[in-house]
Amino acid sequence: MSQAPPLPTAGGKPKKPASQRIPIIAEPFVSERARKTLDIVEKFVEEECIPADPIYAQQLGHGDERWESHPFIIDELKKRARELGIWNMFLPKNHYSNLAEYDSSGGAGGFTNLEYGLMAELLGRSRTASEATNCAAPDTGNMEVIARYGTHEQKAKWLRPLLNGDIRSGFLMTEPDKASSDGRNISLSIKQEGDSLILNGSKWWSSGAGDDRCKIFIVMGKDANVREGEAGYGRQSMVLVPADTPGLVVHRMLSVYGYDDAPHGHGHITFANVRVPASNLLLGHGRGNEIMQGRLGPGRIHHAMRSIGAAEVAVEWLIARLNDERKIPFGKPLREHGVLLEWVARSRLEIDAARLIVLNASIKIDSSDAKGALVEIAEAKILVPQMALDVIDRAVQAHGAMGVCQDTPLASSWAHIRTLRIADGPDEVHLNQLGRRETRARAQECIGRIEEWKARTADLMKKYGIEEKQLGGSKVQGFAKAKL
Amino acid sequence: MSQAPPLPTAGGKPKKPASQRIPIIAEPFVSERARKTLDIVEKFVEEECIPADPIYAQQLGHGDERWESHPFIIDELKKRARELGIWNMFLPKNHYSNLAEYDSSGGAGGFTNLEYGLMAELLGRSRTASEATNCAAPDTGNMEVIARYGTHEQKAKWLRPLLNGDIRSGFLMTEPDKASSDGRNISLSIKQEGDSLILNGSKWWSSGAGDDRCKIFIVMGKDANVREGEAGYGRQSMVLVPADTPGLVVHRMLSVYGYDDAPHGHGHITFANVRVPASNLLLGHGRGNEIMQGRLGPGRIHHAMRSIGAAEVAVEWLIARLNDERKIPFGKPLREHGVLLEWVARSRLEIDAARLIVLNASIKIDSSDAKGALVEIAEAKILVPQMALDVIDRAVQAHGAMGVCQDTPLASSWAHIRTLRIADGPDEVHLNQLGRRETRARAQECIGRIEEWKARTADLMKKYGIEEKQLGGSKVQGFAKAKL
Amino acid sequence: MSQAPPLPTAGGKPKKPASQRIPIIAEPFVSERARKTLDIVEKFVEEECIPADPIYAQQLGHGDERWESHPFIIDELKKRARELGIWNMFLPKNHYSNLAEYDSSGGAGGFTNLEYGLMAELLGRSRTASEATNCAAPDTGNMEVIARYGTHEQKAKWLRPLLNGDIRSGFLMTEPDKASSDGRNISLSIKQEGDSLILNGSKWWSSGAGDDRCKIFIVMGKDANVREGEAGYGRQSMVLVPADTPGLVVHRMLSVYGYDDAPHGHGHITFANVRVPASNLLLGHGRGNEIMQGRLGPGRIHHAMRSIGAAEVAVEWLIARLNDERKIPFGKPLREHGVLLEWVARSRLEIDAARLIVLNASIKIDSSDAKGALVEIAEAKILVPQMALDVIDRAVQAHGAMGVCQDTPLASSWAHIRTLRIADGPDEVHLNQLGRRETRARAQECIGRIEEWKARTADLMKKYGIEEKQLGGSKVQGFAKAKL
Amino acid sequence: MSQAPPLPTAGGKPKKPASQRIPIIAEPFVSERARKTLDIVEKFVEEECIPADPIYAQQLGHGDERWESHPFIIDELKKRARELGIWNMFLPKNHYSNLAEYDSSGGAGGFTNLEYGLMAELLGRSRTASEATNCAAPDTGNMEVIARYGTHEQKAKWLRPLLNGDIRSGFLMTEPDKASSDGRNISLSIKQEGDSLILNGSKWWSSGAGDDRCKIFIVMGKDANVREGEAGYGRQSMVLVPADTPGLVVHRMLSVYGYDDAPHGHGHITFANVRVPASNLLLGHGRGNEIMQGRLGPGRIHHAMRSIGAAEVAVEWLIARLNDERKIPFGKPLREHGVLLEWVARSRLEIDAARLIVLNASIKIDSSDAKGALVEIAEAKILVPQMALDVIDRAVQAHGAMGVCQDTPLASSWAHIRTLRIADGPDEVHLNQLGRRETRARAQECIGRIEEWKARTADLMKKYGIEEKQLGGSKVQGFAKAKL
Repeated sequence: MSQAPPLPTAGGKPKKPASQRIPIIAEPFVSERARKTLDIVEKFVEEECIPADPIYAQQLGHGDERWESHPFIIDELKKRARELGIWNMFLPKNHYSNLAEYDSSGGAGGFTNLEYGLMAELLGRSRTASEATNCAAPDTGNMEVIARYGTHEQKAKWLRPLLNGDIRSGFLMTEPDKASSDGRNISLSIKQEGDSLILNGSKWWSSGAGDDRCKIFIVMGKDANVREGEAGYGRQSMVLVPADTPGLVVHRMLSVYGYDDAPHGHGHITFANVRVPASNLLLGHGRGNEIMQGRLGPGRIHHAMRSIGAAEVAVEWLIARLNDERKIPFGKPLREHGVLLEWVARSRLEIDAARLIVLNASIKIDSSDAKGALVEIAEAKILVPQMALDVIDRAVQAHGAMGVCQDTPLASSWAHIRTLRIADGPDEVHLNQLGRRETRARAQECIGRIEEWKARTADLMKKYGIEEKQLGGSKVQGFAKAKL
Repeated sequence: MSQAPPLPTAGGKPKKPASQRIPIIAEPFVSERARKTLDIVEKFVEEECIPADPIYAQQLGHGDERWESHPFIIDELKKRARELGIWNMFLPKNHYSNLAEYDSSGGAGGFTNLEYGLMAELLGRSRTASEATNCAAPDTGNMEVIARYGTHEQKAKWLRPLLNGDIRSGFLMTEPDKASSDGRNISLSIKQEGDSLILNGSKWWSSGAGDDRCKIFIVMGKDANVREGEAGYGRQSMVLVPADTPGLVVHRMLSVYGYDDAPHGHGHITFANVRVPASNLLLGHGRGNEIMQGRLGPGRIHHAMRSIGAAEVAVEWLIARLNDERKIPFGKPLREHGVLLEWVARSRLEIDAARLIVLNASIKIDSSDAKGALVEIAEAKILVPQMALDVIDRAVQAHGAMGVCQDTPLASSWAHIRTLRIADGPDEVHLNQLGRRETRARAQECIGRIEEWKARTADLMKKYGIEEKQLGGSKVQGFAKAKL
Repeated sequence: MSQAPPLPTAGGKPKKPASQRIPIIAEPFVSERARKTLDIVEKFVEEECIPADPIYAQQLGHGDERWESHPFIIDELKKRARELGIWNMFLPKNHYSNLAEYDSSGGAGGFTNLEYGLMAELLGRSRTASEATNCAAPDTGNMEVIARYGTHEQKAKWLRPLLNGDIRSGFLMTEPDKASSDGRNISLSIKQEGDSLILNGSKWWSSGAGDDRCKIFIVMGKDANVREGEAGYGRQSMVLVPADTPGLVVHRMLSVYGYDDAPHGHGHITFANVRVPASNLLLGHGRGNEIMQGRLGPGRIHHAMRSIGAAEVAVEWLIARLNDERKIPFGKPLREHGVLLEWVARSRLEIDAARLIVLNASIKIDSSDAKGALVEIAEAKILVPQMALDVIDRAVQAHGAMGVCQDTPLASSWAHIRTLRIADGPDEVHLNQLGRRETRARAQECIGRIEEWKARTADLMKKYGIEEKQLGGSKVQGFAKAKL
Repeated sequence: MSQAPPLPTAGGKPKKPASQRIPIIAEPFVSERARKTLDIVEKFVEEECIPADPIYAQQLGHGDERWESHPFIIDELKKRARELGIWNMFLPKNHYSNLAEYDSSGGAGGFTNLEYGLMAELLGRSRTASEATNCAAPDTGNMEVIARYGTHEQKAKWLRPLLNGDIRSGFLMTEPDKASSDGRNISLSIKQEGDSLILNGSKWWSSGAGDDRCKIFIVMGKDANVREGEAGYGRQSMVLVPADTPGLVVHRMLSVYGYDDAPHGHGHITFANVRVPASNLLLGHGRGNEIMQGRLGPGRIHHAMRSIGAAEVAVEWLIARLNDERKIPFGKPLREHGVLLEWVARSRLEIDAARLIVLNASIKIDSSDAKGALVEIAEAKILVPQMALDVIDRAVQAHGAMGVCQDTPLASSWAHIRTLRIADGPDEVHLNQLGRRETRARAQECIGRIEEWKARTADLMKKYGIEEKQLGGSKVQGFAKAKL
């Protein structure tokens, strides 16, 4: 593979490497090490992962066999990524003490959120790249949770193989028939009995539950050992539950616009008296929402940047389509149709604006933490999926029937990014929260400012001896006078 | 005025000063001097200019008197701005040689486009602030043109009083019945006869032509002394024409959604054998478009940032309105209506994204020049006015009938920013150019990349001995077989 | 004028007369008399009113004189309309008893809401046409109110001259600093003392208050003689107040964007112990909201159809612009620019859809009454202004700078139709009410239907002996089994 | 089944039967027979088809077995529909001579386009209903083509079993790598050699090709026997090709987003020297585009009305969701969230407007033919799919994760209606054509009208002795004078 020619081969001017395409405003924030890694990641994604994406689909097979194993191309890619030194880049490893003890992967973490964000954009261009570099959700968030909140025993047992890419994991939060966007509604029951925790209830959208390598779930539930109101935000706890624990049954897989996402899958799972040791509790009784909050910020940045990567791929398919010499409807090649050129322009513009919003949010997290960047993260969470859906939908439309089928990545990209307007809370919840925060926090400031302006204007009126003249002045005065 | 209390007085937490509200991603680009100036500008705008805006309207008077003088409050504000040392901040003075010779204003130029952009946002919050600091269009662009391209004589005569704020100026490009967005269509005739230039034709949207202080016009026309094709891009020249030159007649003033913008005004002007000395030519015969190009980049940044300032003011009115205790339709204060909170959130988000686009474009200009930042400037030019119109229109709607009248700055802001979707070329021209450039420049790259991906996939298929499996696999094969 | 050639003269195929352009679906509802009237109205509007619109503006003059009289062209047009027999067409006269007693105008009323709606569309094409035919708001609604609810004395005094076009009138509902969209918030105080009613408070957006012919106001206020809760919906009453009653002062005129709408005007009025005879009460104490409801339905249809007329005019300007031979930006006439053709198509489509919505609502009112057509009227109220604004804004944009000024009717149309998204309740109130009504009224139906479907499916599953197969079937079963 | 209780059972007020929900404006066009049929269709769809939709999916099975047979529930539903007398309602049978000879189905055709349109809306509510009543595409269009253009032999062989529901059919037009929206680009080769026609080339999006009951294809191709330009619009012919003809190979099935639509399927088919008798030619050499045009109009109405049916179902799911007592995010049931109520209102409004556009187009076809209704059909074609996608997407979003999966019909509806923005020509082609037609057809009329208005205004100016007064009048005059 290494003797492969540089992309592209078809006479096109190669685009500059990723390290030279960083928006100028973000450049001061990117280290030399990150730039080098960025270019290695790009080369790997373009030359090895994207071409492997269709192989992944083929190796998956048909019908039920699709759930019975995973395509072995992914193992080859993982091996390759480790050789290239691009592994676990998501991990801000300097943040955690004693991490080295559990990490024998040699991974390349330690980047800022901004730096890893730029890499995540590249990973988002391919179906296989995130997993190939051990940077796939929900494992990344799960590893962060265990690294930050886990006990020595928990880390040794679960973090080690996860960092090594030997197993995968699930994060079980969403429940059917609940408004799960509000964490306090989570109601799977967790009850401590002696040295055990007993879980009863059901979860769905348990992503990854279909994969035979998925060995551990982080499960959120309502903790019977926490009294109402005791724990502030909620009564939820998080528990580590091995996938093969008796009583835990994956009933079915949910589809996303017809895609079942085998072998990963989105499981509907029931818990009937599922029993795990009390030592599997994470952080403490009633601290589930606290863990949740810490987990969400960087994860949203990762999702956003991967979506931007998918949008950029869509633009590339769009531009290629407009220059397709075989497509000459009504006597003009597609690139001469003004409406389509507008689509390219708007897509360029909207992607660039969205990227700056995410990068700014990343820097804000880097400079303080996720709590200090609430507004910026919410902006990224809301803006990016809608932008990416618009961009991809334009590319679909420009491809005609080809755009909705398996011959491009567009339809699949669209369907999966569509879920990001729902996951981690629907857009409307975030818009409402952002609007409410802004409206409340600035109420006095805005009212006060306008009143102050008016008071100063009144002073100036007096100072200059001005009486207010009004539209229709003499008329109004005459009219008024006539009545007296 | 100096003993005035800090804003706001109504119990609100004062917002942080402008120097501390710079988006974190832009901070590395802002000097200490710029930060200090920014805070002085903010204080001046909030405490002196915005309260003076209604005074300006009142001093203007009614009916035709509105065209006969200018409100004297503006002279007071100008005096005050010079005292504060905030004058001519737009001027990148280090770019020009010998400028000091013509500049006795003591102005505070020498800022980067980014730094001045941040100030322009603040100036855009008030009707009077730009003129008060001698940073108003079209004077700023005109001063830049004369500073860059003028002769010693031209600078002494026109640049000096302009820098000093003693006179104002017009820029006459747009013509009725022409598609002026394409500079080559400009057709006012310029003809050299001996030592004179003779101008014939008409111009409209000559902004500032109503003001009695407007003494000089920069006029663009088609030069009879340049042969077709000789000058590359066009045959246009630019000429300095004093406003009182015989034969130049301002016929009427054009309105903007009912606003006549007295005393500034937007004139419709005819030229009948208007004669000026040949030494009034700028730069050289046929070099009008070249001057034009240089003038546009920074001007677009200024317009964009001022519009962002106006959008921020609209958000402040919106938030104040939502917290107005007298407005309780259907039993809930406006701040409890979910749709309105979404408007605040979307406005926050859209302004922040647009600002980052403009700041990134500014830095790009600063790091090379306007030509090197074509794409970034186009993005700002297209994105900002549409965003600001959306934001302001939401504030209008939330104010009900109050929003469309003279009791807030909203309706007037909307109408004037509406013209920015047209001025310097309508959105559609810029979208088309941006789309065309992107589509052409990346055609080979995108086609090449997709072909390369396919070629590599084919190699992998061969390597792994995979035959393509298709949806409906066995069926398709059986079906096909049946026919043989 | 009668010898004028048929429109258009410039070689264009004349469009078919209005009676032949009725949407085919609405034809069965239009009488022969209405068709004939429609064509007379169209000829009058096209040949006499639209050409008179600029005369109206010129006769209005400048400065304060604009408020001191009304352009006499309107009197000529009114005379002409009466000659043509197109006068008071809005009046469903057969609905009222004894109307003939007060109506010596010879007006052509008695049309259905659908029929008059079609005429209103034509009237909406011109600034002067509605007034010329005595079909202008707010007089139309006011005449309906007095005809329906007035006493003999009230009719004799006010309805007679209104029907005759001798005077004009105002409808004073909206108050500053109130959420007037909810009628129960109206708080101008009305108090009966002996034989008098005393009014105190203020009103704004009192349209028509600037006109010297405006002699009578219908004023809505909170009636001190009605106890809380007594009158069901509210405590508001309506009172006839002559414009020259002492204590009533028009303080100023409000502008719409930059238009002051002289001489009509939108007044800000205060009432200080304004005293009128108790016999000026309309219908009864506390019955203001009842009158209000009856007034609104047809008025919304009229506004909607006039806006559609304005949108059609905008399309005509747009099409003319696209075919302007002088506008050839970038080498192609505007009519070759794909984006602009899309604008024409979308405008065509959106106008046609909106018109059908309004016509359907009209027929619904005709077949029952405004209460029976609540949903349909709300649809028209919400849909039409937004549609018209979009259509007009496209025409503005296609005209460039010309579009925002006084050289076309576009900017003025836009600004005035913009108020319709606010007047009679902002869009958001109507959307909320429509959504709430639908959501509540159909809750049980929709839940019930879905449950019934599921129950029947379950029956069929049993009948056919089907056990549910799931995505990932065998895997899920195997997976589940492994745990046992 | 007949003893089933009326819908709904859950305490909801049953909605009025379909015959009483016809928009009032359309009522005059619906016969008594159609009303009765409408109610029978509605009862069948609600009580038998929608509950059977999940059975269909279950009987289909998993993996490749999904392509090997069809769910037998469909046969039961077909039997039932024939018993109810609702079969072949799409067929305007009176239009064709001798049809009875081939039709032993006893079907209930003979409705107007409007009447069948109303039925199609009901059929569009269920996945199985169209096929159950033998009203499914592409069979309906194919039956119409054969009925109208077929020879006696062709009718006897293919129309008879199609009318009887014994076989199904495909319509093969779209080709890979062609801009098929322009029929003249179709290039599969058809060549007559003696008594045979030889076909070579490939087709894709051959819908229905997966079904074992699909026995006959109508294939469009470029006819080597027609010389360039000879046949006016194009050189294309249409040929009847039995599905089991040697040389015809279905290579693969295309997916729509993630749906493969088994057993129907969308085939990619190649033709290698496929030979059929010359008597299989339809109508004549080079007459393919002529057949095409006739086929499209009513088909577009059917698609549009079925999409409206799907949108109505989405609204029902949306309303049920908003009233789901288990969904209380942030302390308020979903039905109290203002944004969601707006979604219901907008959906109601947009569906109602779209329906009127389609019904008006249907009546236009009924009153002349598809050619006479070009504009109206284009409006329906463009408006409906976009509207339905918006409505359905709102319902998806309100359902959160449940909305994108198999637990509601929403995601599948969305994906399939998404193809209607592409099929039969993408939106952009239709918008362009509609815009171009309107812009050209009305050019002279619009220019002429505006010129005429101006001429008449000039006459009036002269008549009244008015000189134009301008904004800034005295100033402008003084200014101008000063220069002289």
